[in-house]
Amino acid sequence: MKRLLITGAAGNLGKICREGLKGYADVIRLSDLAPMDPAGPNEEVVQCDLADRAAVHELTKDVDGIVHLGGISIEAAFDDLLQANLLGTYNLYEGARKNGKPRILFASSNHAIGFHKRTTKLDDASEQRPDSLYGVTKCYGEALASYYNDKFDVETVSLRIGSCFDKPRNRRMLSTWMSPRDFMSLIKAVFDAPMTGHLVMYGVSNNASKWWSNDHAAFLGWNPQDSSEQFRAEIEAASEAEDRHDPAVIYQGGPFASAGHFED
Amino acid sequence: MKRLLITGAAGNLGKICREGLKGYADVIRLSDLAPMDPAGPNEEVVQCDLADRAAVHELTKDVDGIVHLGGISIEAAFDDLLQANLLGTYNLYEGARKNGKPRILFASSNHAIGFHKRTTKLDDASEQRPDSLYGVTKCYGEALASYYNDKFDVETVSLRIGSCFDKPRNRRMLSTWMSPRDFMSLIKAVFDAPMTGHLVMYGVSNNASKWWSNDHAAFLGWNPQDSSEQFRAEIEAASEAEDRHDPAVIYQGGPFASAGHFED
Amino acid sequence: MKRLLITGAAGNLGKICREGLKGYADVIRLSDLAPMDPAGPNEEVVQCDLADRAAVHELTKDVDGIVHLGGISIEAAFDDLLQANLLGTYNLYEGARKNGKPRILFASSNHAIGFHKRTTKLDDASEQRPDSLYGVTKCYGEALASYYNDKFDVETVSLRIGSCFDKPRNRRMLSTWMSPRDFMSLIKAVFDAPMTGHLVMYGVSNNASKWWSNDHAAFLGWNPQDSSEQFRAEIEAASEAEDRHDPAVIYQGGPFASAGHFED
Amino acid sequence: MKRLLITGAAGNLGKICREGLKGYADVIRLSDLAPMDPAGPNEEVVQCDLADRAAVHELTKDVDGIVHLGGISIEAAFDDLLQANLLGTYNLYEGARKNGKPRILFASSNHAIGFHKRTTKLDDASEQRPDSLYGVTKCYGEALASYYNDKFDVETVSLRIGSCFDKPRNRRMLSTWMSPRDFMSLIKAVFDAPMTGHLVMYGVSNNASKWWSNDHAAFLGWNPQDSSEQFRAEIEAASEAEDRHDPAVIYQGGPFASAGHFED
Amino acid sequence: MKRLLITGAAGNLGKICREGLKGYADVIRLSDLAPMDPAGPNEEVVQCDLADRAAVHELTKDVDGIVHLGGISIEAAFDDLLQANLLGTYNLYEGARKNGKPRILFASSNHAIGFHKRTTKLDDASEQRPDSLYGVTKCYGEALASYYNDKFDVETVSLRIGSCFDKPRNRRMLSTWMSPRDFMSLIKAVFDAPMTGHLVMYGVSNNASKWWSNDHAAFLGWNPQDSSEQFRAEIEAASEAEDRHDPAVIYQGGPFASAGHFED
Amino acid sequence: MKRLLITGAAGNLGKICREGLKGYADVIRLSDLAPMDPAGPNEEVVQCDLADRAAVHELTKDVDGIVHLGGISIEAAFDDLLQANLLGTYNLYEGARKNGKPRILFASSNHAIGFHKRTTKLDDASEQRPDSLYGVTKCYGEALASYYNDKFDVETVSLRIGSCFDKPRNRRMLSTWMSPRDFMSLIKAVFDAPMTGHLVMYGVSNNASKWWSNDHAAFLGWNPQDSSEQFRAEIEAASEAEDRHDPAVIYQGGPFASAGHFED
Repeated sequence: MKRLLITGAAGNLGKICREGLKGYADVIRLSDLAPMDPAGPNEEVVQCDLADRAAVHELTKDVDGIVHLGGISIEAAFDDLLQANLLGTYNLYEGARKNGKPRILFASSNHAIGFHKRTTKLDDASEQRPDSLYGVTKCYGEALASYYNDKFDVETVSLRIGSCFDKPRNRRMLSTWMSPRDFMSLIKAVFDAPMTGHLVMYGVSNNASKWWSNDHAAFLGWNPQDSSEQFRAEIEAASEAEDRHDPAVIYQGGPFASAGHFED
Repeated sequence: MKRLLITGAAGNLGKICREGLKGYADVIRLSDLAPMDPAGPNEEVVQCDLADRAAVHELTKDVDGIVHLGGISIEAAFDDLLQANLLGTYNLYEGARKNGKPRILFASSNHAIGFHKRTTKLDDASEQRPDSLYGVTKCYGEALASYYNDKFDVETVSLRIGSCFDKPRNRRMLSTWMSPRDFMSLIKAVFDAPMTGHLVMYGVSNNASKWWSNDHAAFLGWNPQDSSEQFRAEIEAASEAEDRHDPAVIYQGGPFASAGHFED
Repeated sequence: MKRLLITGAAGNLGKICREGLKGYADVIRLSDLAPMDPAGPNEEVVQCDLADRAAVHELTKDVDGIVHLGGISIEAAFDDLLQANLLGTYNLYEGARKNGKPRILFASSNHAIGFHKRTTKLDDASEQRPDSLYGVTKCYGEALASYYNDKFDVETVSLRIGSCFDKPRNRRMLSTWMSPRDFMSLIKAVFDAPMTGHLVMYGVSNNASKWWSNDHAAFLGWNPQDSSEQFRAEIEAASEAEDRHDPAVIYQGGPFASAGHFED
Repeated sequence: MKRLLITGAAGNLGKICREGLKGYADVIRLSDLAPMDPAGPNEEVVQCDLADRAAVHELTKDVDGIVHLGGISIEAAFDDLLQANLLGTYNLYEGARKNGKPRILFASSNHAIGFHKRTTKLDDASEQRPDSLYGVTKCYGEALASYYNDKFDVETVSLRIGSCFDKPRNRRMLSTWMSPRDFMSLIKAVFDAPMTGHLVMYGVSNNASKWWSNDHAAFLGWNPQDSSEQFRAEIEAASEAEDRHDPAVIYQGGPFASAGHFED
Repeated sequence: MKRLLITGAAGNLGKICREGLKGYADVIRLSDLAPMDPAGPNEEVVQCDLADRAAVHELTKDVDGIVHLGGISIEAAFDDLLQANLLGTYNLYEGARKNGKPRILFASSNHAIGFHKRTTKLDDASEQRPDSLYGVTKCYGEALASYYNDKFDVETVSLRIGSCFDKPRNRRMLSTWMSPRDFMSLIKAVFDAPMTGHLVMYGVSNNASKWWSNDHAAFLGWNPQDSSEQFRAEIEAASEAEDRHDPAVIYQGGPFASAGHFED
Repeated sequence: MKRLLITGAAGNLGKICREGLKGYADVIRLSDLAPMDPAGPNEEVVQCDLADRAAVHELTKDVDGIVHLGGISIEAAFDDLLQANLLGTYNLYEGARKNGKPRILFASSNHAIGFHKRTTKLDDASEQRPDSLYGVTKCYGEALASYYNDKFDVETVSLRIGSCFDKPRNRRMLSTWMSPRDFMSLIKAVFDAPMTGHLVMYGVSNNASKWWSNDHAAFLGWNPQDSSEQFRAEIEAASEAEDRHDPAVIYQGGPFASAGHFED
């Protein structure tokens, strides 16, 4: 791959990708609204507001693939989500459509399906049940990706990411954790595949406790290597038992499901 | 029902509802961005921009049910859809949440699933495959409705409307037509039901040729009485045979599926 | 058919069958623990306690079919259900096994699936979710019927009966009502069929509002003719609207689902 | 339609079609290995052996649709089936491919699925379970039709015909009967449809007792009008009850399922 | 966990649990109708007849979890099963309901589904097909557990146990074997989980030959470590090949499926 | 096993089996139309044309199992396929039926399902979609095998073989490759199993990239040990990237799907 664009490069996932994808493409173009570290070798750094259509169309030129992590990744005021996640994602897809149709890894979220119970095993055919306005914007992003694939042949893997940190940080993450290493191998599998169409996947490591199946995506050949199980004792020792009558424990979305409305 | 709000009351569907629902509620509140006929007996007329949050919160006060037809109902420039369908629908749901949680009939559209082939029979579990930016906004509306039901107990029937006119206007509508009479009986079934949760349904009469099943919604007791079949001969005489290699014939969305991108 | 046995003949369903099946068999043998009207032409009346094994084995001699309505048909103390529904049904199946293996119409109940929501459409593959101890005994009866069919070739139609009266008596019965006429035609379809194996069906008329599908049993050729819809206006006028937060409204089992434990 | 080819025109189904499709096309071309009545107005009569490739390629010229009833339609010696049904059907599809790709109504048979039990409801996704060598050749024909559609865009409706006579002739046909009138309306629906792809359907009237579903094909708009039920009394009076331990009663294929091997 | 109750503690499974769960709870309360070894450290030993309601209600006081192995675990006379498995299990659930609603691991059995063929892969949605009266009582127990969960929030894992011994004892057990070690880790996973609702699982190790899937229960994080494969050569050398026409080989229940009726 | 017949013994798969199954049966009978190496110890070599019925009936005498690899295994002229694959396979099954009904491993092919997309995960319930005339003959073979099992109790495992070589030879084989070692262990699992009925399986190793599931066949206990992944770097270095608009890349059948018609 000649040039890979990573949006949201200043965020947690963006930093993981910047570090982890070094060398995967001849050039990595990094973009964020926030300031980023200066460009290193084989890097381009472009500060850019996703809500600025012209800037995004410029940003998406001459790239062979896009890892779209940009936008807001927590619950937020609707008007902010409107700009960053609804308008911003549209701008990105229009940029891709006009600029050679690079394949996109779209960072969707488990919060697009957060109102399913933890006792329910999901796959790509499970209905969306967003747990937050943020989750609704991810459902929208998946619909947009489906549309651009069906009509314009812009391919997307919509990755419903669990939680990606060095290690799981609480009991819920024992089920939702994706290691940075597994995330990197997944991104490579996505861009190395001959075709993907629009594919919904779950971004999660090979944890002992599983809520989600990627069986339908086995053609990609992605087999995560890490498991949260090694951290179980440590986490359980450091936290209280979960209350099974708490919506944050009943539903996959965790605290997003139990939170009230976001009031700005 | 004491007071029913109908948004989009100046449009085609809105006029059908205004006429057809007379007497169903003590008061019908009619709203649109465009001018409407003056209020008749038991009517209230409120001109309102769905993108105006405060106005919408005022509009949704003291109502027991909402037929949400407002917003843009054809393919349009994204920035217009953003205001009317993305922001506007959010404003409406927030209004409902703050004002007693009336049940909502949300006018979704067959264009939320328009990239399925006509040879595929769909039900509520079929994946969304929008055929247009307009269709994407309807997928978004369904996700928003799911969220408000799961978290705030605001119930919605998301009705994927086919085409609602006095009679079908072309060959495709032989499959997608919903008679105004069937539409009215459906609205009544929705608001008379003891509960609906968030329910996805198809708005279509009992046509001979069927693409969609409402079997899962049989608890509502809605059994459409009309069929497009009586108009078949007339329509086939007045139009050319369909070309099976035309995307507008292959896909359920018809011309929405074959159209290129909307350029404003 | 030469001789048909009806158990529970003194009850509501039993009386409907006694009247409605006149002439269907050369002889109708009627049985109950309670006193019954004296035998009319072509009738045999046998008072019998289902918990009395020897008596039941005698009762089941020389019959070509059994309509098993006997036992307790409402929530009751477990010890009473144990005798009538657990022991009694076993005795009946043993009688059938030893006496020529007549086919059995087993009166199961919607209370075997009463904890499914009304918004869920069920068929024969839906999991059992009993709403009462009574419902649990019906699940047991279905399991027993499955066993006797698989191992001993005693065939059964386990009929999950909704509510069988002259007309529906409340709003819930608009969905669950089976007319006596439809019940009779169903019984005949069951005994006239060349084979049934063990078949789970729903006993319900062709109501507008439907919770259950008998599609899988279409080979029987039973097409109910009646609908509760003609009684809707009358019932709605005579009763209050249903509260969607009431478990008796949420769940198919109605008041059985909302009732606390039976304390004797 | 300008010219419709009917193969097997001298057989039972062929005669029904010759009579029933008069006027449906400008010209009906009739073909069989056996002698046929001379051509009437708007008819062409061509005697032709389906195993003769050159003749079949000639036969399929200048036609807009093919009703392929030709070949052997009962159990027979394999070597005969090889010529008529394996080689013959291939010749027909090659003819269609080379001559403008007319749509084909392929007379498949219930004997392609005859080893399913009568208590099992089938649809187009049910696995093939042929009950005879004849049935195996129909499975082959369906596979061939699938191939020609996927690779060459030759469309086919593979119609698993039950039994098509003026009226049902035995108890089994109460479930499998298709009236000639319904068969004709089906053929017209198939050729009038804008597209079919490769579609597997069941050829059966709207009988009370049903083994098969055409729900997936509802886009065609075919709704059979006749039912075997009017003949039930007459047939049951004229025949013995069925023995549920007889394979011919257990399985959908009837006597085809119980017959031993065809020995020539 | 403070106190765990194990019923059926004098039996094979009970002894395995007594040994294997040492230290898992502060106190293990052991119960059986039969005499048990005297209480060791952190143990309580209570002889108790499950059919004695008052005694069972006493037994279930002050416990945080119950492993319910009690009752009869082989085919037996119905009257014995009635007392031990039908009445006994009811008594246990009533005890749990009245005494703080501890979670229950209910020892169901593969004999609840023993009339499925070995060539059929089952999961929790597979229909019950009991192979014995014993199996029927296990179906009943699962229904009871479903009821107590839905109505009273008493959670249960209904574990359809294959065969739990130090090593597999015959060819069938190569597929059904659960090692004591895997059983213990499963019990811990069940009681450590934040919630289970009513969950049907299969109790089987990670054998090479599999009839059952626990995929739906992956949220529990139980991954059995043992496999019967290491014993295959030894077992095959010591036993005759299986006859594929023997019901004990055709059906999952093995000899339970082929046995005639239990005559006492 | 006393005597195992391998047809097609002179071909690629035949040679792998001849070598790999040494010692598995007391005698291996090898057959092909082409010349084979002379018989070694415990071998019988029989040159035989599958189209010669009498010879095939002789060939199938006194064997306990058949690995049927014979016939044409690439796209070919229909008339050649007719002799070798349609007539030849029939002759083989007739031989088996008349000669003690040995179990058969039938070499079906991925080309029976080659027009499914690579992004679709298949199992045994997936519909056949042959990609070639050769693929159609394999669909026919599977139907024939189903028939002989249902009617005559001749069991078959229809193995849809991917590609069996020492190592994968191109990018597509990274998904379809079955190692010779895994093929041998599969054959042994098939013949060692107590029963198989008619079972459709996929012949593929445990590759990282998977298109097919054998989950339904887990009762066999076959767990392939090899993976193509070790060859990925070598193959990708030696070949160009795949074009996602090429039918040979879109469809599972690879070049069989993109090839035009076979013209002889």
